[in-house]
Amino acid sequence: MVAKNPPMGWNSWDCFGAAVNEQQVKENADYMAKNLKEYGWEYVVVDIEWFQPTASTHEYEPFSELVMDEYGRLLPAVNRFPSAADGKGFEPLAKYVHDLGLKFGIHIMRGMPRMAAHKHLPILGCDKSCDQVANPNSICFWNPDMYGLFCDREGAQEYYDSIFKLYAQWGVDFVKVDDIAREYPHCEKEIEVISKACRNSGRDMVLSLSPGPAPLDRAEHLKTYANMWRITDDFWDKWELLLAMFERAEKWAIHAGPGHWPDADMLPVGSLRQDYDKADQTKFTKAEQITMMSLWCMMRSPLIVGAHLPKNDEFTLELLTNSDVLAIEKESHCAHQLYRTDSEIAWIAPRKDGKGVYVALFNISDVDREVTFEPASADLEEYSDVKELWSGSEFDNSEAITEQIPSHGAVIYLFS
Amino acid sequence: MVAKNPPMGWNSWDCFGAAVNEQQVKENADYMAKNLKEYGWEYVVVDIEWFQPTASTHEYEPFSELVMDEYGRLLPAVNRFPSAADGKGFEPLAKYVHDLGLKFGIHIMRGMPRMAAHKHLPILGCDKSCDQVANPNSICFWNPDMYGLFCDREGAQEYYDSIFKLYAQWGVDFVKVDDIAREYPHCEKEIEVISKACRNSGRDMVLSLSPGPAPLDRAEHLKTYANMWRITDDFWDKWELLLAMFERAEKWAIHAGPGHWPDADMLPVGSLRQDYDKADQTKFTKAEQITMMSLWCMMRSPLIVGAHLPKNDEFTLELLTNSDVLAIEKESHCAHQLYRTDSEIAWIAPRKDGKGVYVALFNISDVDREVTFEPASADLEEYSDVKELWSGSEFDNSEAITEQIPSHGAVIYLFS
Amino acid sequence: MVAKNPPMGWNSWDCFGAAVNEQQVKENADYMAKNLKEYGWEYVVVDIEWFQPTASTHEYEPFSELVMDEYGRLLPAVNRFPSAADGKGFEPLAKYVHDLGLKFGIHIMRGMPRMAAHKHLPILGCDKSCDQVANPNSICFWNPDMYGLFCDREGAQEYYDSIFKLYAQWGVDFVKVDDIAREYPHCEKEIEVISKACRNSGRDMVLSLSPGPAPLDRAEHLKTYANMWRITDDFWDKWELLLAMFERAEKWAIHAGPGHWPDADMLPVGSLRQDYDKADQTKFTKAEQITMMSLWCMMRSPLIVGAHLPKNDEFTLELLTNSDVLAIEKESHCAHQLYRTDSEIAWIAPRKDGKGVYVALFNISDVDREVTFEPASADLEEYSDVKELWSGSEFDNSEAITEQIPSHGAVIYLFS
Amino acid sequence: MVAKNPPMGWNSWDCFGAAVNEQQVKENADYMAKNLKEYGWEYVVVDIEWFQPTASTHEYEPFSELVMDEYGRLLPAVNRFPSAADGKGFEPLAKYVHDLGLKFGIHIMRGMPRMAAHKHLPILGCDKSCDQVANPNSICFWNPDMYGLFCDREGAQEYYDSIFKLYAQWGVDFVKVDDIAREYPHCEKEIEVISKACRNSGRDMVLSLSPGPAPLDRAEHLKTYANMWRITDDFWDKWELLLAMFERAEKWAIHAGPGHWPDADMLPVGSLRQDYDKADQTKFTKAEQITMMSLWCMMRSPLIVGAHLPKNDEFTLELLTNSDVLAIEKESHCAHQLYRTDSEIAWIAPRKDGKGVYVALFNISDVDREVTFEPASADLEEYSDVKELWSGSEFDNSEAITEQIPSHGAVIYLFS
Repeated sequence: MVAKNPPMGWNSWDCFGAAVNEQQVKENADYMAKNLKEYGWEYVVVDIEWFQPTASTHEYEPFSELVMDEYGRLLPAVNRFPSAADGKGFEPLAKYVHDLGLKFGIHIMRGMPRMAAHKHLPILGCDKSCDQVANPNSICFWNPDMYGLFCDREGAQEYYDSIFKLYAQWGVDFVKVDDIAREYPHCEKEIEVISKACRNSGRDMVLSLSPGPAPLDRAEHLKTYANMWRITDDFWDKWELLLAMFERAEKWAIHAGPGHWPDADMLPVGSLRQDYDKADQTKFTKAEQITMMSLWCMMRSPLIVGAHLPKNDEFTLELLTNSDVLAIEKESHCAHQLYRTDSEIAWIAPRKDGKGVYVALFNISDVDREVTFEPASADLEEYSDVKELWSGSEFDNSEAITEQIPSHGAVIYLFS
Repeated sequence: MVAKNPPMGWNSWDCFGAAVNEQQVKENADYMAKNLKEYGWEYVVVDIEWFQPTASTHEYEPFSELVMDEYGRLLPAVNRFPSAADGKGFEPLAKYVHDLGLKFGIHIMRGMPRMAAHKHLPILGCDKSCDQVANPNSICFWNPDMYGLFCDREGAQEYYDSIFKLYAQWGVDFVKVDDIAREYPHCEKEIEVISKACRNSGRDMVLSLSPGPAPLDRAEHLKTYANMWRITDDFWDKWELLLAMFERAEKWAIHAGPGHWPDADMLPVGSLRQDYDKADQTKFTKAEQITMMSLWCMMRSPLIVGAHLPKNDEFTLELLTNSDVLAIEKESHCAHQLYRTDSEIAWIAPRKDGKGVYVALFNISDVDREVTFEPASADLEEYSDVKELWSGSEFDNSEAITEQIPSHGAVIYLFS
Repeated sequence: MVAKNPPMGWNSWDCFGAAVNEQQVKENADYMAKNLKEYGWEYVVVDIEWFQPTASTHEYEPFSELVMDEYGRLLPAVNRFPSAADGKGFEPLAKYVHDLGLKFGIHIMRGMPRMAAHKHLPILGCDKSCDQVANPNSICFWNPDMYGLFCDREGAQEYYDSIFKLYAQWGVDFVKVDDIAREYPHCEKEIEVISKACRNSGRDMVLSLSPGPAPLDRAEHLKTYANMWRITDDFWDKWELLLAMFERAEKWAIHAGPGHWPDADMLPVGSLRQDYDKADQTKFTKAEQITMMSLWCMMRSPLIVGAHLPKNDEFTLELLTNSDVLAIEKESHCAHQLYRTDSEIAWIAPRKDGKGVYVALFNISDVDREVTFEPASADLEEYSDVKELWSGSEFDNSEAITEQIPSHGAVIYLFS
Repeated sequence: MVAKNPPMGWNSWDCFGAAVNEQQVKENADYMAKNLKEYGWEYVVVDIEWFQPTASTHEYEPFSELVMDEYGRLLPAVNRFPSAADGKGFEPLAKYVHDLGLKFGIHIMRGMPRMAAHKHLPILGCDKSCDQVANPNSICFWNPDMYGLFCDREGAQEYYDSIFKLYAQWGVDFVKVDDIAREYPHCEKEIEVISKACRNSGRDMVLSLSPGPAPLDRAEHLKTYANMWRITDDFWDKWELLLAMFERAEKWAIHAGPGHWPDADMLPVGSLRQDYDKADQTKFTKAEQITMMSLWCMMRSPLIVGAHLPKNDEFTLELLTNSDVLAIEKESHCAHQLYRTDSEIAWIAPRKDGKGVYVALFNISDVDREVTFEPASADLEEYSDVKELWSGSEFDNSEAITEQIPSHGAVIYLFS
C-alpha cells in the first residue's frame, strides 16, 4: 500500500520558491539523511517551475520559454539542474537521493504546456497531437504555463501516461499535482485520469493533490484517487492561518487513514524565503510551532518541512525529532476534536494498539493561561498514568489536570 | 454527571401522538421494567400535549383550552391523567415509574401558553406578569400553543425556574424541550435560560432539545447547554429517512461524549400509530431495523423506542436486547464513518478500554450483496479475533472478510 | 374607475402615531378643506390602532384589550373617537369629512384580532367561527394584534366581506391594509380575498397596501388587485431614505397608470411626531423637500402628507400648492429615469396630451452645483419654450441649459 | 452624435457563421442598397473570424494560425477576402460598401491574439511588447483566439489605439466588440479603454458590445461608453427565446435613447445557416416574426438582419420595409410595457412630436385569441383616430378595441 502512514519529507517551495536548483536540493537531502531520516522523514520534493530556465523568485513569468521534449513533456532546465543534461531528466538527482536512503519527489501542474498545443506537438503512444486534447479554456488562474486536457478525448490518458512513465523511469517516488485539488467539479475526471496514469506507471508513487481547499463533500472521491490532498490554500507562518486550520482539521480528520491523508500543507519552520533580499526565519513563535506540530500529528496530516534544512537551529531540529510526538502519526487512529471554546481547543486520538489515548490541549487565546482538563469528560478516568509529550513529564491521572500553557501553545498527554 | 452515557428509554409520540393517557404510560412502564430494564433501558417519557383535554390524534388543535395553574404553568389534563387530580400534577405517575426502578420524563414546548400572556397572569417568584415577558412574535410554526419569551427581560428566567421547580417537585428525570433545537440564532439565549433553570431545579434531569436539525456549527453551544439534541426533523419508518441519517451521523459523531449526545430521534419499531383506524406495525424491514440499531449504537445516539411496547413481537424484543450491540453505546468512543460508496458504508469505533475495535458494514443498495472488508485498510490487521454481533458468529481475522448482507442490512464486527 | 389619478391626501401616522384622536383628525380635515382642497387634495386617513383605547405613542402594546363587536370586527375606541359611541363606528366622522367636500379613509391590519380567535367568536354571514379561519402561525412581526386568515377556508372571504361592508356602511372611501404588501408569496391569496371584499362592498374605496417594499416581480398581481402599494419600508425625513427612493422609483415607474399606483409613502413635511416631548419639524431641508415632491410627481406616486397641517408654515403650504408641479401627477405618462451619475439624476415624462415634455434634474451631491442638460440628448431639440416649474422662470430652448441647483435640490422643466 | 437613432443593418453571423467571404458580403450589400436602403437600413457588418483562413462553419478552431501583422493586429484572411491582399485590409471592401451609399462594420474579440503574446510582438506606438500587457488568465470561454489585456498597464491603451486607428484607416463605421458586454466587473476598465480608442480613432464608429446579457445594474456605464450593447445571449429563431425577450425588454427599455441602445440581437428571418448541409429558412412563423419586429421597434432596439438577403422571399422583404412600423424606431420615446398576463402583453410608446401614441398588443398564448384593449386604461380616451400599422386599417377610437390576433402574433395601434 502506498502511503500506509502519512508521508513525511521536505519541499523546496517555502525556502526557494520557483527557483530551486540542484545544489540546494542536494544540500537538503544530505541534511535529512544525516539528521532526520531516523525519525521517519524520507521524501525530498522539488517544487514548481523546474522546467523554467529564468525562474528566480516565488513569482511566475507569463509567456516564458519552457523546456520540453518533442512530445510536449516538460524537462528540468539544465542551467538549474546540470545533471539533467543530455536528456537524462531527473534520473541522476533521484539516484543521488535514493543513495542517501531517501525518496525523491517532483511537482507538476495539471495539463500540458500551452506551447505544446499551439505548436501541435505529437503525443507519445498514440496518433493524436497536443492541440487535439488541450482545452483552450482550461487554464490555471495563478500560473500561466499550461492548458488542462479534454479528459474524455482520446489522447488525454495517453498524454498523462507518457509523463508518468517518464517520471517512473527517472525514479520518482512522489508526485505533487497542482491546480487540481480544489477544482471540482470540472477537474474530477482529470483527477481520475491522472490517478490511473500514476498507478499504471510501473512504480509506486505517492499522488499528492494541490492546492486546497479541496471540497469536503468530495472526500470519498479524493480518498479513492489520491494519497493526500490539500485541505487549505497555501499555508504560511501567520497565526491567523494556523488558527483557521483547526476548523478544517475538525472536519477532515475522519477522512485520514491508510493510503489517504488530508494534508494541512507544509510546515513553515526554520529558515524560509531564500529568494528575498534576506532569507528570513519563520514568524511563528516557538509556542505556535509546537501547536502546529501537535495539530498536524493529532489529525495525522502529512508532514512536509518548508525550511532550508541546513540552516536549522537547535529548536527547529528538536521540533522535528520528538519521537513521542511523531509516534502519534503512526500509532493513533480515529482522532477528533473534543471541544472548542473561545480560548481552548482539545483533541483526542486513541492508539491503534489499545495501549492508551492521546489528548492535546491548545491555548488559542492571546494570553498565557492555566488550562484544566477533566479526564472523565472524555471517559479517560480509568487510565492510571499520564505523560506530557513535549516536556516528557509523567504523573498520575487525577480528577482534573491543570497546566500553564503559553499563548498559542499546546501540550499533548498520553493517557495509558 | 447527568447522561454520562447515551440515555435509553421509551417515548409516547410514535404510538400515541398527542393523545397518550396515564393507563398507556403505565402499561409501557410495566413492560419496560419486566423485559428491558436489565439491558439498560430506563426512561419513560410522556410526549406533547399532556395539558390538552381534547387531544385525540397526532394533530394539534389551535385555540384550544389548555390546563394551567394561576401562574401560567401547564398541568396534566385530569381527564387523561386521573392521578393528577387535586393539583398533584405528574407526581403520582412519576412515583409509579420510580417504583418500577425506572425514570420519568415529560415533553414541553419552549415558552408559555399564549393565553397566560393574553390573561396577564402573574409569574411565580417575581413581580412580573406573563404579558411582560411573552414575545408576541415568537411562535412555533407547527404548534399553536405557546409564545416564546423575551429572554433578556426580567421575569423570563423566573418563569422557566418556576416550571422546572414544579417538575423537580413532581420527580421528573428527563425534560424534552421542543421548538428550540433548530431555532438558532434567535433561540440561543432561550436555550441558555432553560438550561440554567433545569440545572438550578434541585434535581438531576436530562435536558433534551427538539426538533432537528440542530445546526452543526452550533455544536459547542449545544454540548455546553444540553444533554442531547435532535440532529434531524422527525424520523419515521421510511428507508429514505434512514439512509439520510448516515450523512448527519457522519458529521455529528465527533460531538458525542459524556453528558452531550447528538440524537438521531426515536426508533420507530414494533407497533406504532395507535390513534389511527388501525394501529400499524413499523414499515421498516428487519434488515433496516438492524441497520438503524447498528448506526444509532455506532454513533452513540440516545435510544428512545417509539413502539407500544406491550405489543412487541419476538423480533422487536430481540432487537432491543442484544447485549453485545447495546454495549457499543457504553463501551466505545471516537466513532466515525470509515468510507462510503454508492452501495456500502462502513463505520469504525474503538473500545474505550483498548480491548478491541468495532466495525459496522452497511449495505445501502437495493439488492442483497456480498460485502468485503479489508482489515488493513483500517489498520486492524494486528487483531486476531473477529465476532459478528448480530449473529454471534466468531472467526479468525484475515486479509479480507466477506459477508452476504441483505439489502438495507448491516453487520457489526468486534475486532479483538 | 377608482383612483384614475394618483390619490392625494393626509394620513395621521407621521404626526400622531398610534394615538390620533377625533379632534386631531377634524382639525386636519378643516385645514385641508380650507387650504388644499382646490389643489386636488382630498383623502383624510386615520392610521393604525384606532381600536386600541390606551395607545399613546408610535409604539404598540402587546396583549392589550382591543375594541371589537360580537363578530370580531374592530371598532373605534370611544375614548379617542367620542362620535363612535353607541356602535356608530366611524360613520359620524366620515360624515364630518364628507361635509367638507373631502373623502375619508382608515387603516387596518391584515387578519382578525387574536382574541377573536381565542374566544371562538362567530363570523357574520356564515356558520363558521373565528378560530376556524384564523391561522395561528400567520402573525405580523411588528404588530401584536392580529392573526392572518387561512384564505382557502370557508369563512375567510366572509370575514373580510363583513368588515368591508361595515366600512362601506360607515362611508369609508379609502382603506390602507397593512402587513401585506411585502408578504409575498404567502399573502398572495389574502390580497385577492381582500380585494374581492373591497370591490364587493357596495362602495368605491381606494385599496392601498402596506408596508413595502412590495416585490417588483409581483407588479402585475399588485396592479390587478390593488389601487396603490408601498414600494418601500416606512419613509421618514432622512436624506439617505430619499436618495434610496430614486432606485425604487426607477424600477417601479413603468407600473404607474390609471387605477394602479406604486406608492413612495407619505411626505414627512411640516410638523411631525406630535406624540414626543416636543413636536418636531421635518428634518428635510427645503431643497430636499423640493426634490421629494419633484420625484413623487414625476413617478406619479400618490401624495399623502404626514404633517400636522394646522401647523404648516408658509414654505410647506407653497410646497403643497404649486399647481404646475401638481399637474404632472395628472397630465403626464410614461415617465422614466433618463440617466444617473454620481452627482446627478434626470427624469423625463411626456404630457399625455402631447403638448410638452417634463424633465426633472436632481442634484444628489452634497454641494451646490451647476447642472447642464442638453435637450438633444433626450430628443427634445425640437421644442421652442422651456419653463422651470418651481421658480416659474421661462426661457427659449437652447443647445445646453445650465442651472445652479443647491445640494439635494431639484428643478423641473416643461419643454413645450 | 453617433447613433442618434437605433442602428439598422445586416450582419453575416446568422447566415454564414465564422466563414463569410468577400463575395457573400458584397451580394448582401448590393441587395441592401437596392431594396432596403430607402427604409433606413445602412450597416453591412462582417462578423467573427475574418482573420482565420480555415474557418468553414459556425464552429471555432482552437490553436489555429490567425493572420496578423508585425504588431499583433489581426488582418483579413486573403483567401477569404481577396481584396485584402497586399496589406490593404478591409479598405477595398469598405470602399465598395460606401460606394453603394451604405456603411461598413466589423466584429472583433476583446484582447489580442494569444500568439502575439507568446511571440512577444511589439505594440505599435510605444516601447512595450504584447507579452507585457496580455493577461494569461483573461480568456474567452467560448472562443480560443485571444488574451484580454491588463488595462491598467502601459501598452494596453496603445494596443487598442493601434487597432482602432487601423480600422479608421480602412473606413470602418461600426465595430462590434465581443466577449465583453456581460463580463462585468472584470472587463469594466477594458470597456472604457476600448471606448476611448474608438472615440480617439479620428472616425465616427458605432461601438457595439456583445454578447449579452449585459448586467442591468451597469446600464449607466454602458450608456456612457457604448452605443449599443446586447441584453441577451445569442438570439435565434425559437419562440422560447422570443418570449423571454419581453422580460428583458421590459427592464431595459428605459435605457434607450440618442446614442445608447439596448440591443435585443439580430433578427433571424429569411434564409439562415448557409454553412450547413442545406441552408434553412427561419423557424419563426409569420406571426412570430411580426411579434419580433413589433417588440424590437417598440423598445427601440437596433435592427440587424441575419438573413442571407438575396434569398429573401416576399414576406421577409415586406416585414423589413413597413414604413409605419419602422417609424416607431425614429419617432417614439419613453416606451414601456403596459401590462402582462399569462396570455397577453401590451406596450406603449408616445411619439416624440406629441402627435400620437403607439400601443402594441401581443398574443403570447399558444392559441389564436380575441384581444381587447381599453384606451382609458392607458389614458388614451382623448384620442379620436386609431390605425393598425401591420394591416393599415384605420378606425375611430372607442371604449374597447377588440382584435383577433393569431397565436404568438401582434398588432400595433397608432392613436392620434
